[in-house]
Formats: sequence, structure tokens, C-alpha cells
Amino acid sequence: MPGTSEAARYQRRRERAVAALPEHGLAALVVGPGPDLTYLAGYRISASERLTALVLTAEGYVLVVPALEAPRARTAAPDLTLREWQETADPHAIAAALAGAGDIAVGDQLWATFVVRLQEALPGRRFRLASEITRALRMRKDPDELAALREVGASADRAYARVRDLEFAGRREEEIGADIARLLRDEGHDEVTFTIVASGPNGASPHHQTGPRVVERGDAVVLDFGGTRQWYCSDITRTVVVGEPDAELVKVHDLVRRAQEAGYAAAGDGARACDVDAAARAVIADGGYGEHFIHRLGHGIGLEGHEHPYLVSSNDEILERGMAFSIEPGIYLPGRFGVRIEDIAAIGADGRAQPFNAADHALARVR
Amino acid sequence: MPGTSEAARYQRRRERAVAALPEHGLAALVVGPGPDLTYLAGYRISASERLTALVLTAEGYVLVVPALEAPRARTAAPDLTLREWQETADPHAIAAALAGAGDIAVGDQLWATFVVRLQEALPGRRFRLASEITRALRMRKDPDELAALREVGASADRAYARVRDLEFAGRREEEIGADIARLLRDEGHDEVTFTIVASGPNGASPHHQTGPRVVERGDAVVLDFGGTRQWYCSDITRTVVVGEPDAELVKVHDLVRRAQEAGYAAAGDGARACDVDAAARAVIADGGYGEHFIHRLGHGIGLEGHEHPYLVSSNDEILERGMAFSIEPGIYLPGRFGVRIEDIAAIGADGRAQPFNAADHALARVR
Repeated sequence: MPGTSEAARYQRRRERAVAALPEHGLAALVVGPGPDLTYLAGYRISASERLTALVLTAEGYVLVVPALEAPRARTAAPDLTLREWQETADPHAIAAALAGAGDIAVGDQLWATFVVRLQEALPGRRFRLASEITRALRMRKDPDELAALREVGASADRAYARVRDLEFAGRREEEIGADIARLLRDEGHDEVTFTIVASGPNGASPHHQTGPRVVERGDAVVLDFGGTRQWYCSDITRTVVVGEPDAELVKVHDLVRRAQEAGYAAAGDGARACDVDAAARAVIADGGYGEHFIHRLGHGIGLEGHEHPYLVSSNDEILERGMAFSIEPGIYLPGRFGVRIEDIAAIGADGRAQPFNAADHALARVR
Repeated sequence: MPGTSEAARYQRRRERAVAALPEHGLAALVVGPGPDLTYLAGYRISASERLTALVLTAEGYVLVVPALEAPRARTAAPDLTLREWQETADPHAIAAALAGAGDIAVGDQLWATFVVRLQEALPGRRFRLASEITRALRMRKDPDELAALREVGASADRAYARVRDLEFAGRREEEIGADIARLLRDEGHDEVTFTIVASGPNGASPHHQTGPRVVERGDAVVLDFGGTRQWYCSDITRTVVVGEPDAELVKVHDLVRRAQEAGYAAAGDGARACDVDAAARAVIADGGYGEHFIHRLGHGIGLEGHEHPYLVSSNDEILERGMAFSIEPGIYLPGRFGVRIEDIAAIGADGRAQPFNAADHALARVR
């Protein structure tokens, strides 16, 4: 149950969201389960077929909630007005009636089933996205959020230190993935969201699905894992080698590490997101592997594993103090191996990107 | 990697979906990450900010996929045509260009961010929901799906048998929840999705969030847990008592059990969903607790924990052989306790509802 100061924090966030409605020409924000609802109400639930929606307008805030979840909502957000609906009621009509007149912004992750039914209940109204407002709020982390990100990052670091002691050769990727999940929980994670173990040629697929491949001596193995602690996300990648690396792996790993350092150096207060991406990308291009860095440099992180700001060539957004994001260059050689190194960083009071992951960046030799 | 027979199964499902487009007056289905994509393509991924969408039209099927996830998609669905998009491309324009002319049905769980951007790319087009087509397909399970549900149900049963040996008195709900999660994994679950431990007065909230309350001697404890094995979901509820129950708990538990039996008896081939709900509800109403059964009787289950058909008074859908659903009556006494008993059942070849959970239904005494 949130204390008064926590309730006040969510209340302040809602006030700022509502204050931004007129300048965006919006009548209402309608936010369902997911990070926006967690951010604005401290109420964190999974999406389901029963509509839960926080409706924010100039008139105030109302949480539309299934009656059978009302006790839980009341505990999580005791200061919110609840509008309970019974099993056979139409919650879309209830939410629509609260939404005022004008454009509606719906939560970016609201399910289509609710979007389409709200549109049917509000014909002719323009539907837009809540991130027009919540993006600016959520990108700028407050001190409590930064502390939570630092803590979960340290937890991931501790897990990685123990990952290096695992047995790799002769075991399936999915066995190693299960070990990593256990270590994350052991080191303080509340939830484990993903454990990518991409060995040998599988490492050339950045979002490889950890599978049955048996890790072999000499393999490079990309380990990318994370989860949550106190609702905030971790996300760390290190590349290890089983036994001794060949010369190209050493060279590629060094290049990726230097690209990451260039990203850190560029990611200061006032930098454009695209320029940070470019700074890291230039190192890899200069090293002759430009065509093999096939994804953006990074993504924001907070209540979501991936959120604004994105460090990508198409984003000219200006970075500021208090923003948190991954810096994760990679090189992917199809049929052979991949290397990626990823830290979470945030721009500190001194205007420079500070790591939330301090785990050793060297190419670790594992068994 | 799917074998030929699996690939053929997904292909057949896509053909059936496409065949249904004209009768629904639809030009295209656009399905994102989630159960519909798993059902139609055997490709199971989490939703993310990068659009993945299977577009089905009379012209065929194309999977729009982020380039960096293409290797994984190709492994999962080798017979699908992929349309890869690079990090700075606009995937909505690509999907929109594939969508033909006419109404578009989007996956029910597609995120609003994609729905709104597809609507911007296709102005003036009517957007509807994919469940208009996928609901009818997915409700009628094929033998492989029923076998998967039976297996995951048996796994949950084995976990429950061991749950009864746990220590309850003096421990926090969340500790017991963590134990249940461990037992589910131990007994063959790939993922644990939820573990509700609702003790004493918390049991009166059907969707209670397992928390710090310390379980006391004499408490009724509602245990509702589940997850997946080979992508199919389990969901079982039993109510236990710490020590000896008082007379009203025994009476309420017996009433709920009899209501469930009435649900089983009513849930045959040809029955209306609302009549099954009514049959169970009548038992509880006759017992004097009608106002305390505050939710629907049940929900379909398969690739999703909650899916069609819903056993609720507002649904006059006819149940058929091969449909699978929960039967889960409950009685909730605010400030005191709750009782719920839940099995998964499916309508068998003999036209009768057969349980996929055979775990003991009696009010178990625990320590």
C-alpha cells in the first residue's frame, strides 16, 4: 500500500499530464494496464479482456475498473475515484462518457479490442496516442526512479559476475538461460523478463530465441538478460567466449567496446539522440564492420524495458539530465558469431552519461 | 523449428482465416504478437515497440518483421513470406500497402500505437477486430491443442498435490506464492503466469494481489495459479484451510463445490454459455449466497489464459465439442473470507464436459 508521499507523487504526475492536455488539443487521456498506468497511478496490473482504464480530463481522474478488481485497485491507488463496472456492463460506454469533447489520446499499449470499441462509442472523434504527453514526462526520471534503475542494474551486475562461473561447453542454451534467470532472482530481481543466450552462429541474430543448441568450445556467446526490481527494468549484455577466442573475435569485441565508449562520450546533456548513435556507429564503420551493426544504438528504459528516448539515426530528440537509456553496439557476422555489449546509463548532474552497469566489459573466458 | 506437419497445420489455419474474409466483408486481417499470431503462424513473441504483423488477404500471407528479428521469424515460420523492415523504415506504411481495399480487422491485442498509426496510413477505412474471424477458429480446439491442455492441467494438478504439504501458518502470502511457482516449474510448466494466494479476508477479493499478509491459523486461503507448457495455459483454483475450518467455511465450500458440479452437468455440447453460468449460479443462490458470487462462471482457455467462450449471463453462444473453458464458481464474504474452486474442462466426444484438472476438490487442511 503506497504511503502518503507516494500517493502525492502519482497525484503530481497526473496533474502534470492534465496540465498538458490543452496545449496538445486533447480532451482526455485514456490509459489502460501498462507502464503509463503504473506511472500515473501506481497501479500495476497485466492487461486482460476486462477493461481497466484511467481517464484523465480537465474535470479530474477516474479509474474505470472491473468490480472484482476494485479492492485491489483501491489498495494500490487509495486516492483515486473508482468507477466500478459489473461483469455484464459495457465499460467502453462508461469510459466514453467520461472522455469530454475533443480528441482522445489512448495509452500506446491499450489493446485494439478497447481502442476499436471506444471508437465505436465515440464516432467521429480523432484518436491519438497518450505518448504525446506521457513520453515527455516519463523520459525525465525523478531521483527515486534513477535510484531504482541503479539498484536493478547493480543486481544484474552481480548476476553476471556469477554467470561467468557457469559451465557453458556441452550444455544447451536454454539450460544456461534457466541458470541466468535463477541468478537474477537470487541477486534481487523480482521478475526475469528475458534471458538471451545466443551461441556461435546464433549470436548473429540480435534477438535470437534461446534454444536447444549445445554450446561448443570456441563459441562466442552473447548473453543479454534482464527483468525488474521494484517495477524498474534491467537490461545488460556481455559477450563471453568458451575457452580461447580466435583473433577476429578479439578484434570485433574490442571494436564493439570502443564503439560503446564513443557512445558514452557522446551521450551528454544537450546531445541529439541520432548523434550518439552516429558516434558509436562511426567507430564500427571505421573498423570495417559498418554493415554488420544492424540495429539502433539504444533505447530508453524505466518502467518499460524499451521506451523513449531511442538512440537511432532517425531521432533528433535532445538528451537531458535524468534521461536513462541503453548503449548497446553490436556486430553480427551471419553464420559465424555476434558480439554485443550493453549497459544502462543515465545523464547525471554533471551532464555526462553515467553507467548503471559496472560489470566487467572484457571478453570473459568461460568454461 | 517446426516440422512439416506443424507447418501444414498453421498453413491450414491461415487458409481457413482467409476463406472467412469475404463472408465478413473484410479485406485483411492484421495480426500482431500474441495468441492470434501464435495460432496462425506458430510464431510466439512478446509485443514490443517494433511492429511485427502478419497480414492476411485474399492475395496471401506476409509477415512484416523487423530486420533484426527476421532470423528468428524464419526459423519459427519457414514457409511464410517475410517483409523485413530496417530500423528507420515505416512499418505501418508497409503493412498498410499490403492490406487491400476494404475493412481491416486488427488483432484484438494489437497495441494502440500500431492501430492508430495504421489508421493514419489508411484514412477513411473502417477498423474492426480480428476476433470476428479468429474467435470461431480458436474456440474449437484440435486434438493437439486438447492434448496440450490436458498435459498442462495434469502438471498443475501435480503441483497442487505438493502445495498441500507446504507450511502456511506464519508465512507471508508472497512466500507461499513463490513456493507454488517453483512447484509449477518443477512439475513441468515452462512459464508461471500468476500465483494468487489470498488468505483470510484477502480471499474476498477474487483478483487479490498476493502480498505481505502473514497467514494465520484458521484462515481460508484461496490458491489460484497457472502458467504454460508448450504454449498452452493452465489455471486451477483450490481453497484450503489452515488447521480446522469453522462451520460456515465448510458450508460455503460445499456449496461452491456443488455449484461447480452443476456447471459440469450443464456444460454439454449444445448448451448455451449463459445457461451453464445460470446452472451453477442457481445452486449458490438457493444456498443463500447469490449476492456473493460476484463474477462470471468461467472463461475459455488455450493459447490465452482467458479467451472465448466466456461463461457469463450475457453470452448466449452455443458450446460445442472441442471447446475448453474454466468452471470456477466462488463466494466472497467481505472482511471475512472467500472460496473458489476452479477446473479446466473441455467438451469431449461424448458431448459432456470432461475435467482437465483432477486434483482433489475437498477443502484440504494444511499446516
